Amino acid sequence: MYPYRRCLTTLRYAVAITKVSRVPTMNKSASHRPPELEVESQCPLSGSRKVYAEGRDGLRVAMRQIEQTPTPLAEGGEEANLPLVVYDTSGPYTDPQASIDLSRGLPPLRVGWIEARGDTEHLADSGSATAHQISGRRFPSVPRPRRARGDTCVTQLHYARQGIVTPEMEYVAIRENQRLEAAPNWGEVAPGRITADFVRSEIAAGRAILPANINHPESEPMVIGRNFLVKVNANIGNSAVRASIADEVEKMVWSTRWGADTIMDLSTGADIHTTREWVLRNSPVPVGTVPIYQALEKVGGVAAELSWPIYRDTLIEQAEQGVDYFTIHAGVRLAYIPLTVQRITGIVSRGGSIMASWCLTHHRENFLYQHFAEICELMRAYDVSFSLGDGLRPGSIADANDEAQFAELRTLGELTRVAWEHDVQVMIEGPGHVPMHQIQENMTLQDQECHSAPFYTLGPLTTDIAPGYDHITSAIGAAMIGWYGCAMLCYVTPKEHLGLPDKNDVKQGLIAYRIAAHAADLARGHPAARRRDDALSRARFEFRWEDQFNLGLDPDTARSYHDATLPAAAAKKAHFCSMCGPKFCSMQISHEVRRQAAEISVGLATKADEFRSGGDQLYRDAS
Amino acid sequence: MYPYRRCLTTLRYAVAITKVSRVPTMNKSASHRPPELEVESQCPLSGSRKVYAEGRDGLRVAMRQIEQTPTPLAEGGEEANLPLVVYDTSGPYTDPQASIDLSRGLPPLRVGWIEARGDTEHLADSGSATAHQISGRRFPSVPRPRRARGDTCVTQLHYARQGIVTPEMEYVAIRENQRLEAAPNWGEVAPGRITADFVRSEIAAGRAILPANINHPESEPMVIGRNFLVKVNANIGNSAVRASIADEVEKMVWSTRWGADTIMDLSTGADIHTTREWVLRNSPVPVGTVPIYQALEKVGGVAAELSWPIYRDTLIEQAEQGVDYFTIHAGVRLAYIPLTVQRITGIVSRGGSIMASWCLTHHRENFLYQHFAEICELMRAYDVSFSLGDGLRPGSIADANDEAQFAELRTLGELTRVAWEHDVQVMIEGPGHVPMHQIQENMTLQDQECHSAPFYTLGPLTTDIAPGYDHITSAIGAAMIGWYGCAMLCYVTPKEHLGLPDKNDVKQGLIAYRIAAHAADLARGHPAARRRDDALSRARFEFRWEDQFNLGLDPDTARSYHDATLPAAAAKKAHFCSMCGPKFCSMQISHEVRRQAAEISVGLATKADEFRSGGDQLYRDAS
Repeated sequence: MYPYRRCLTTLRYAVAITKVSRVPTMNKSASHRPPELEVESQCPLSGSRKVYAEGRDGLRVAMRQIEQTPTPLAEGGEEANLPLVVYDTSGPYTDPQASIDLSRGLPPLRVGWIEARGDTEHLADSGSATAHQISGRRFPSVPRPRRARGDTCVTQLHYARQGIVTPEMEYVAIRENQRLEAAPNWGEVAPGRITADFVRSEIAAGRAILPANINHPESEPMVIGRNFLVKVNANIGNSAVRASIADEVEKMVWSTRWGADTIMDLSTGADIHTTREWVLRNSPVPVGTVPIYQALEKVGGVAAELSWPIYRDTLIEQAEQGVDYFTIHAGVRLAYIPLTVQRITGIVSRGGSIMASWCLTHHRENFLYQHFAEICELMRAYDVSFSLGDGLRPGSIADANDEAQFAELRTLGELTRVAWEHDVQVMIEGPGHVPMHQIQENMTLQDQECHSAPFYTLGPLTTDIAPGYDHITSAIGAAMIGWYGCAMLCYVTPKEHLGLPDKNDVKQGLIAYRIAAHAADLARGHPAARRRDDALSRARFEFRWEDQFNLGLDPDTARSYHDATLPAAAAKKAHFCSMCGPKFCSMQISHEVRRQAAEISVGLATKADEFRSGGDQLYRDAS
Repeated sequence: MYPYRRCLTTLRYAVAITKVSRVPTMNKSASHRPPELEVESQCPLSGSRKVYAEGRDGLRVAMRQIEQTPTPLAEGGEEANLPLVVYDTSGPYTDPQASIDLSRGLPPLRVGWIEARGDTEHLADSGSATAHQISGRRFPSVPRPRRARGDTCVTQLHYARQGIVTPEMEYVAIRENQRLEAAPNWGEVAPGRITADFVRSEIAAGRAILPANINHPESEPMVIGRNFLVKVNANIGNSAVRASIADEVEKMVWSTRWGADTIMDLSTGADIHTTREWVLRNSPVPVGTVPIYQALEKVGGVAAELSWPIYRDTLIEQAEQGVDYFTIHAGVRLAYIPLTVQRITGIVSRGGSIMASWCLTHHRENFLYQHFAEICELMRAYDVSFSLGDGLRPGSIADANDEAQFAELRTLGELTRVAWEHDVQVMIEGPGHVPMHQIQENMTLQDQECHSAPFYTLGPLTTDIAPGYDHITSAIGAAMIGWYGCAMLCYVTPKEHLGLPDKNDVKQGLIAYRIAAHAADLARGHPAARRRDDALSRARFEFRWEDQFNLGLDPDTARSYHDATLPAAAAKKAHFCSMCGPKFCSMQISHEVRRQAAEISVGLATKADEFRSGGDQLYRDAS
């Protein structure tokens, strides 16, 4: 009944061995323990196993298969329930067959595809001055950076526009379908299937991006766009107040376990470069960053000292490491800053406030705006995607949908066109804090102004009054904007506004956002979404408690809540729970109602049969 | 800085005394400890104190005033911040001046008003056969029941239709305004005020109810209707698996502390009558029940044995105790039951499934439907309001908005008219499980079919896939339907579908639902709603951490999250938190940006002055 418990034992043993043979040789400092995953982060989810759907040329797409127990039949015997295959962001960590070695990183899944294209080359050395200065690189086996040959473009957008369906696109198509053809089907019309060419066409149109830096071949391809499943991003990263590489690697793996489609490493504390290296080499999902954070660190935290050369060097450094998308606050133009002065909460984007400060100090236009074409030239050589930052997003209900925000949005639309001219993939970041009645306006304007480039929003939070619960205030807004067409939701944890999230906060944020994303998928009518709701509700109605737990987003918590009042194994087959007790279980009574209704209908049918066999005497043809 | 900590000490002492002098004399059984509140349930919320707004004739309306610290000014000195008054459901428990004695119950606030109307009388004895049979009534001082004289109608609807503004209506008007006139005003247009006559007119039109059984004079009047603040109900009550009177009283007080506008006692376990007596005598908010639960207990849990006389006796028993509203599943008509047979989750309302079972067993029409006029006659004699139960609400996404649900809704609309003919107040219960895109249809149809009677929904849950997190899956739907016009939201706790909620679950459910209700108030544009968001965001922007905690829905949790990484007292005035650290705090940088912008604008102003004082030479009149 509890495969995950067996797994715990097995893995504990495996990890014990790991401790001996796999500890990376790196400079140890007091503040870092050698990265080593906790056991709970690397075993299959309860009731699940890793499966691989196969594509062309040996392509294998990882998925999670949730097993189900059979339904006992009233007449004796039982009926099997098909397993349900669901989208899986957790990478090899949940595959007991995989050999995990953090100091070597994940296998480079995409390296063959990248090489086969023949448009990239390994650099003899890094093109970034900073990369040279990292004293004693702590990651033991840093790969040599790869770059486009000459001024070739190596973006998925470039390939898509040429009509090329890359293996990444094919992977994504198979992944989005979640083996729908093998799922339980309760008589619905067969849903449409997502094809690789559809993925290509959405990318070519700019309506979707496939973030896939050629220096992050470890990542499993995924797509962000309004015509695909709604995605979720988890922010991790240290701060000057708390910094530990091991913690960040742990949070990254933990995030993907609970459904992060991408993660952003927002580190602003110690060892930014090295933390990112550990994260990238071990991340099965695309990684985003905000390069201005590291650039600011390089100038001692003094925004006025920032410059284009320092920023540019940081872009190269991070692109060579394999960052898949950059948040760039190029829309915070000098002229918009006065629009924020009367706000209640001013500028709440870290990058936005840094750039605003730089602009005002020098009284010059934002250098990111001015060098935007150069940034595009650089990013297309690695296939780094833009996440155009909303530096002037509202930080309170009072500031929502104001002129500062929308002025910047229009500039982001203008920059989208520039990026597309360079064949660079683009998504657009969005708010923030927005009351419910103003959310749809955000989605509509973004769609218009940014020519249907994917929208990627932080929440939005629908009220300011619940510090400690902003995963909930924002899950409401996130679900709604997802329904309206938002492509990716950046999670908010319970610690938002209060402190750096820990591992439990990360999980709470992710579950809230997986709920929001799934609610949006349902409301949009995504063909693969409702199967899981139906499977879970069927399990619930049939008192298959273990299936109900395992089909849910967090089997462990659901089971522990049930255990809180009914811990006995027998209770996991009981036809009631402690909420209503045995006599008041509506579902149990409902089964009885069905039985009664069936008897009545059999009774009526029998009566009807008797009547018919009696010659159908009552009415006769008048003639 | 921490008034609540001082309070803890004081109260611990008070409770120690209570233990000696106030323990009720009641039959003790092994399963019950004498009801006694935990200390955490009866002290003011952090940073808050009880205040009373005064009305006519000495009427005092309880509110909660959140104190704020001053804002330090850059030029030295400080500026005071006005306190913020918020709606307060917690009753005398958060007033340190109040003397709490659970065995005597709360002071009967409304008794003078009820008596002054002269239309009721004390009964010599209970009119319920069951009430006589309660062996050794455990509540020490059960009041004598009150009833309308003869066939007088004593409902607030009856008074409202006659143009009478009752003290209850006046109380409600003052309460809804939350002392808006004394609140911080940052230059917005003065919002409209709710008048007592507006309350009366909304009740008269059936668009609002004021649940106020004459036998529950302890309750503080409140109103449920689409043109008022969105309200939240908390379900408590024991089950056969877990039953303790003390736990239920504790949960009731705890619920009102965290914002329950009404509570429902859904007990189905032991001592239903006595548990309810303890709850009612000590509840400052209206109490609802589902009488069929107790009726079913009286017939040993066999639905087929239910009968109108048994049910009627239960209604009298509960009306005499003071229950303010009854959930009555009179819309589950025999003809609708076959509509549920093809559903994934059948009938998930406990009351609905009980009635469906009764109807099928006897193959007769629902006796609640058939005796509906008699029920009205009975309820108008105590002013018990209807909460017309949605016995056929969907229990899964697949079953949402189906014919079974809407057929029942039409019947509820028909019954609303009947109740109104008897001057009985009515609200309508709603789903359940509904995907986002089908929520608005529920609100629209309810409004049409039920003639704008207030809607009272359970969530709705927007997906089935997150057992353990259904407070979140449903807060999304609740916020949305609140925005669309729903009047009261029945909370869902994290234990939904898994077990009986404990005290912490109750709090989690309430905070999630206060978020939903407030987000809805904001989106509807309620004049009193946004003040709190603005006050909190201003405190946030000014790093008034204690104010930020105290203005939030749960100061204790917010503070503990901040303490998790920055426990020092000095950190509560620091211009950063551990999320971003000192150099990356956008709000701190934003202050700097403002200072810079101000300097530039002063600089420009100086230049302009120089220019003007120089004779404004550049342009001259052409003539």
